[in-house]
Amino acid sequence: MQAVVYRTARHLEVEARAARPPGPGELSIAVAYTGICGTDLHIYHGDMDARVGAPAVIGHEMSGRVADVGPGVDGWSVGQAVTVMPTRSCGRCVACRRGSSHVCHGMDFLGIDSPGAMQSYWTVPAELALPLPEGVPLDHAALVEPVAVAVHDVRRAKVTPADQVVVVGAGPVGVLIATVAQLHGARVLLVEPDPFRRAVAGEIGFAVVDPQVTDPVAVVNEWTDGAGADIAFEVSGSAGGVATAVDVLTTHGRLVMVAIHAQPRTVDLHRFFWRELELLGARLYRRDDMVEAIRLVAAGDIPARALISRVMPFASVDAAFAALENGDGVLKVLLDWQAAAR
Amino acid sequence: MQAVVYRTARHLEVEARAARPPGPGELSIAVAYTGICGTDLHIYHGDMDARVGAPAVIGHEMSGRVADVGPGVDGWSVGQAVTVMPTRSCGRCVACRRGSSHVCHGMDFLGIDSPGAMQSYWTVPAELALPLPEGVPLDHAALVEPVAVAVHDVRRAKVTPADQVVVVGAGPVGVLIATVAQLHGARVLLVEPDPFRRAVAGEIGFAVVDPQVTDPVAVVNEWTDGAGADIAFEVSGSAGGVATAVDVLTTHGRLVMVAIHAQPRTVDLHRFFWRELELLGARLYRRDDMVEAIRLVAAGDIPARALISRVMPFASVDAAFAALENGDGVLKVLLDWQAAAR
Repeated sequence: MQAVVYRTARHLEVEARAARPPGPGELSIAVAYTGICGTDLHIYHGDMDARVGAPAVIGHEMSGRVADVGPGVDGWSVGQAVTVMPTRSCGRCVACRRGSSHVCHGMDFLGIDSPGAMQSYWTVPAELALPLPEGVPLDHAALVEPVAVAVHDVRRAKVTPADQVVVVGAGPVGVLIATVAQLHGARVLLVEPDPFRRAVAGEIGFAVVDPQVTDPVAVVNEWTDGAGADIAFEVSGSAGGVATAVDVLTTHGRLVMVAIHAQPRTVDLHRFFWRELELLGARLYRRDDMVEAIRLVAAGDIPARALISRVMPFASVDAAFAALENGDGVLKVLLDWQAAAR
Repeated sequence: MQAVVYRTARHLEVEARAARPPGPGELSIAVAYTGICGTDLHIYHGDMDARVGAPAVIGHEMSGRVADVGPGVDGWSVGQAVTVMPTRSCGRCVACRRGSSHVCHGMDFLGIDSPGAMQSYWTVPAELALPLPEGVPLDHAALVEPVAVAVHDVRRAKVTPADQVVVVGAGPVGVLIATVAQLHGARVLLVEPDPFRRAVAGEIGFAVVDPQVTDPVAVVNEWTDGAGADIAFEVSGSAGGVATAVDVLTTHGRLVMVAIHAQPRTVDLHRFFWRELELLGARLYRRDDMVEAIRLVAAGDIPARALISRVMPFASVDAAFAALENGDGVLKVLLDWQAAAR
């Protein structure tokens, strides 16, 4: 079989490897599609070398079909459509002991801490596999993991039809949050400086503000009759995005921190005090978020066609990462593993 | 009658003034005690001149007895013990219209925006007056307003007996928050660099960490078996206090922002994301918080004797403000108005 192996910063290799047959409690999956995530880009840039033990097979967004069922595994049949929840909590750390296992401190993140999905056959613990309903296009199903992020974030924000929601950043996760928030009945406005991302969000049907041209706070004030937004999601990862997400909020508004801010940010805490605002960190997803994400993808509620900018053969992985790095012209890029010499 | 009048920065004057008789819907109160708040100090320093129209009678923490009842006011009798909720919402702004009237954008704050309690007779709208149970010492009752702040903050944090709570800052509000959190069943730890404040909190029976000597994060980790605190209240107003309040929290912990941070602060947003922390702004109180504060003061549940460092005649207002400014040796200072030439 074939695998994409991270060697060192900016060096990925497509390698022929022997598939690992499933052990007790494991499934082997013939991978159909893998998505490339921002985290995969961070790994590619060498930013996560301390955590990723190179050489490493990366990737954690995927869909596929069961290829082989290990001893003691029930309920799965060969050929069944499947995706994987790539996070495995340790069960022993403080977070797990306190019932917060989805943000486990000793998390095994498949594709970061252990071998990932970018290989023709992926062998995983069966308890991480989630069945896909028959008929779900497998390219769309490769979006289940980022959809689960959006489901988790929207749940955490407690979005209702009464809410006017601002999403700062219209990358794949921003658009998915906007989509799920709208499915919860909310009215949604996106803020995004990049013209391609604005165009994609606009094609899906979202209103998008270009913060380089129009002041998002003024737009939101007009949109909300001077009240401000009930909920803002910070998905941009930028200092300006944080300021926007704080400044658009109404009294008792909630800011959900989705993006990773590697450095500390300056925050107007007086506004938090004065308006009794809330800030909620939101990370990853729980198993029920994954299950809901599968339901949404299967129902056709996710604009998969608009989000998947390109599907490229796995052998073109370098070109796929380059396209994402350049940023313009692609949102989500999938690698197709179905043609892999197996 | 006599009144303390703010003229300009660092200039308070005790003036003889004519008492204003109560109009329709008003009560006149013979003031017994007024507390001096951090906000009064800000006014004294000239920091709030844009809002306070000098000359102005300041003060908003008080107790007294009804002296005169205006036309159309029912349910009050002369001599009855009373305190006042000094915040009056406008009913028209966005916050009021959305049911968040206690953080009204057009708030009339008595003692800031309109005449305050530092006068022998204070005439106020009767709907702001709250009866005190007979037998409550009126000096203790002058603490009702800051106790209401603590009640509001602890309610907002949803403190339960399962929680280990860190209060950063052991001034009057910090000690009151610690007290109310403990009444909710929580275990509490205070962090305070000032030796006098540490001593007062210690006398009341609280554990207090000196962050200049011991790392509060290490202490909290040991105290919580490595988990971190469930809830932190930031009451110090300092940059270091914000960092401590963030760093002591466990996964899914909540930081309640009580202090006023005039300038933006650097915040570790990555930790909010990673641990799914929450930040909650908390400001002022609602009427039900005032009612609960009265119940707590009347029940003797508030360490009033330890908190009230000095009771000084109103004529010594300059000395009272000087004592607070110097900081060491006083926590809460009350002015006694009962000897005022009426």
